[in-house]
Amino acid sequence: MNEIKIFAPATIANVSCGFDVLGLCLDTVGDEMVIRKTNKKGITISKLVGQDLPLETKKNVAGVAGLAMLEKLNLDHGFEIEIYKKIKAGSGIGSSAASSAGTVWAINELLGKPFATKELVPFAMQGEKLASGTAHADNVAPALLGGFSLVRSYDPLDIIKIPTPSELYATVIHPQIEVKTSDSRSVLKQNITLKKSIIQIGNLGGLISGLYTSDYDLISRSLHDEIVEPLRAILIPGFNEVKQNAIKCGALGAGISGSGPSIFALSKGKEMAEKVAKTMSETYKNLNIDYDIHVSKINANGCRAI
Amino acid sequence: MNEIKIFAPATIANVSCGFDVLGLCLDTVGDEMVIRKTNKKGITISKLVGQDLPLETKKNVAGVAGLAMLEKLNLDHGFEIEIYKKIKAGSGIGSSAASSAGTVWAINELLGKPFATKELVPFAMQGEKLASGTAHADNVAPALLGGFSLVRSYDPLDIIKIPTPSELYATVIHPQIEVKTSDSRSVLKQNITLKKSIIQIGNLGGLISGLYTSDYDLISRSLHDEIVEPLRAILIPGFNEVKQNAIKCGALGAGISGSGPSIFALSKGKEMAEKVAKTMSETYKNLNIDYDIHVSKINANGCRAI
Repeated sequence: MNEIKIFAPATIANVSCGFDVLGLCLDTVGDEMVIRKTNKKGITISKLVGQDLPLETKKNVAGVAGLAMLEKLNLDHGFEIEIYKKIKAGSGIGSSAASSAGTVWAINELLGKPFATKELVPFAMQGEKLASGTAHADNVAPALLGGFSLVRSYDPLDIIKIPTPSELYATVIHPQIEVKTSDSRSVLKQNITLKKSIIQIGNLGGLISGLYTSDYDLISRSLHDEIVEPLRAILIPGFNEVKQNAIKCGALGAGISGSGPSIFALSKGKEMAEKVAKTMSETYKNLNIDYDIHVSKINANGCRAI
Repeated sequence: MNEIKIFAPATIANVSCGFDVLGLCLDTVGDEMVIRKTNKKGITISKLVGQDLPLETKKNVAGVAGLAMLEKLNLDHGFEIEIYKKIKAGSGIGSSAASSAGTVWAINELLGKPFATKELVPFAMQGEKLASGTAHADNVAPALLGGFSLVRSYDPLDIIKIPTPSELYATVIHPQIEVKTSDSRSVLKQNITLKKSIIQIGNLGGLISGLYTSDYDLISRSLHDEIVEPLRAILIPGFNEVKQNAIKCGALGAGISGSGPSIFALSKGKEMAEKVAKTMSETYKNLNIDYDIHVSKINANGCRAI
């Protein structure tokens, strides 16, 4: 195989009580990429459609992730990448992670899988490092592995795939506002109370348990974020209203996707997720804020050939 | 049935990264109790063997837990309790919880189970409130439900039973030293760094995941406490040595049981748990500190009739 066309999924990091440790993979939201072997060594970004991003390999997350992977291989050839971006940069649903994860997943396929999928995570994390300054894993891990990924530890890196209840759907709304990464970082507090930490730990334990047992009620009861959401919500106009309306409508829970501005809701069943999408959309319509909206089953498998 | 004799198990609260949210139930360490119906209303502690504890109903945790339960029932009779304490008070393996949980479990049996076992937890928590000032659930919940109990939330109370891998054994050593509850509380810090909280959350997620999948390696990797153990360890002479020796010997992990001074280790298989017991014992022998030592399978069922 010399060429592969793939779907590189969008992802939701943080997932309320899972701040900095949990991410999930979407199924109908993502980029398309074509990766082919070339005689030229290294990585070439030959095409980038849909977003204004640098083509230069070392300035592009796909390039950097690919180079990190090639460093571990001794190849006499290289790869050319075409990226068809559908995920908007800065939307908070893992745009850079999709490109980084997609690149290394595709190269691994073309080479006959020299690496286990989990081993690809550190390469993709190098793309995240270029994009945000931090080599975080909570978007690239679910993009590669699918379903829910728990980052148990960064040192050493330890990623655990958590099972996905079959009727779990996500609704994601992206209000067309800009939240600067520097702002979403600066509102965080370096110290928190032990009490809040314990509440968050209880909820994360409940969420993981609910995912293993497909206990939607427990998932719902656990989807709270005591620590980060109250601080970051103020950066997203309409957040509280959208969240409350989604829950009133029947969503299991809702929160900030990544560092925003996208807002996600989880629901049991596609019908409910679509009803929730309608409610979330109406809320932003009433606020006169433009938005993109997506409804997606949780993608249990991650990147895939198309 | 007018009388029942029961085993009221000891428990390990906190379980490293599960500080304040997780507890587990022991199988071969615990008290015996006899509870019988009496014409006299209310709760009478008629016998208390093995510990110097008050017999007066309102000053005894079993009495207080029993009264909390009777308040919800309209009975024309009462109960008499004999307690044969084998768990030492202040050892850190749920001595008061065993008496509180045992009482309400036994009364529920004698009455033909008007309450689901989980509904008994709030009654038993009243005994804990008498004993320590705080109505905590992380000992009484596993004593009642067996296995591992997650306290997802106190407000509202939400207890989740987590499955127990079949080969999981606990070793518990109780050095004969006194750690004052006031000391073990005063060393705690009310504020922690966000970074430590995230590490703890990742580990708790890993531990819950490992328990669901019987992944002993993952359980082992997750058994860390970033927040409380480093502060409380200084109150327990020999803690670091005992812990390190247990892990060197092959234990999956080790930590402070409850607020100490008991130290627990978890192991895969009885043979390893006994090997670990030998190592832990030798460490305290070398330090000239007397100790009690227990090896127990995790008790998946909690209190039981004997």
